[in-house]
Amino acid sequence: MTEELAIQKSLELADRAEIAILGTNGDGGYPNIKAMFKMENEGLKAIWFSTNTSSKRVAQLNRNKKACVYFTDTKTGEGLMLLGEMEILTDTKSRQRVWREGFERYYPKGVSDPDYTVLLFTSCRCNYYHALQNVTFEV
Amino acid sequence: MTEELAIQKSLELADRAEIAILGTNGDGGYPNIKAMFKMENEGLKAIWFSTNTSSKRVAQLNRNKKACVYFTDTKTGEGLMLLGEMEILTDTKSRQRVWREGFERYYPKGVSDPDYTVLLFTSCRCNYYHALQNVTFEV
Repeated sequence: MTEELAIQKSLELADRAEIAILGTNGDGGYPNIKAMFKMENEGLKAIWFSTNTSSKRVAQLNRNKKACVYFTDTKTGEGLMLLGEMEILTDTKSRQRVWREGFERYYPKGVSDPDYTVLLFTSCRCNYYHALQNVTFEV
Repeated sequence: MTEELAIQKSLELADRAEIAILGTNGDGGYPNIKAMFKMENEGLKAIWFSTNTSSKRVAQLNRNKKACVYFTDTKTGEGLMLLGEMEILTDTKSRQRVWREGFERYYPKGVSDPDYTVLLFTSCRCNYYHALQNVTFEV
């Protein structure tokens, strides 16, 4: 598989994914994993999430911003791992950008709820897997 | 949600899952993630995998055996995170236990292929998530 094809397939996988798997560095040296709704992606370079400010994930990312975002399609057998760093954002513009209808379920006080936080992941390295082949590339 | 119900739901989720998401400590301090076929699970305590001896994952686990196994059901919105340690096994009994029809695709030399390795994950702590509730328990 050429790098060009791997990048194209990676973009298609990230674009169609509704769920992303987030990896963080947890307590005691254990990696931690959580499935998250992907709110937005700017190609493979930036992935936007929302979460509760009080969540364990925010505390972990405050201590260590190195993270991993993984997309998989179990139907096609593709996997895409993005390595990078996560920013924790609470500014109004980012809150409004990521806010969706029904988010009151998670953040009852609305877009200015202090328990509403935006996470912005920026990738530096990617690994695309399909059919026993791995292709690693930079973004 | 009671701990008893969380454990029951966790067992059901692990039992029906065909895919597990493996988290490891990768190079440069980044968590790494990969979807793997779950070969077997003994309740929540032990999860069996197979992989290529030459894989990046085996090299990472040789350096650091702390790992995370995650199961998710996107239909029900459940997530189960298991923290624990991974053993790298190459003994004949483990190889035979995990070997499945068609594995020649991955390990052309069969059950004694030097590039065939068994991974045995042993959990110490679990977190079950469903409907905005998290329950943490030991196994």
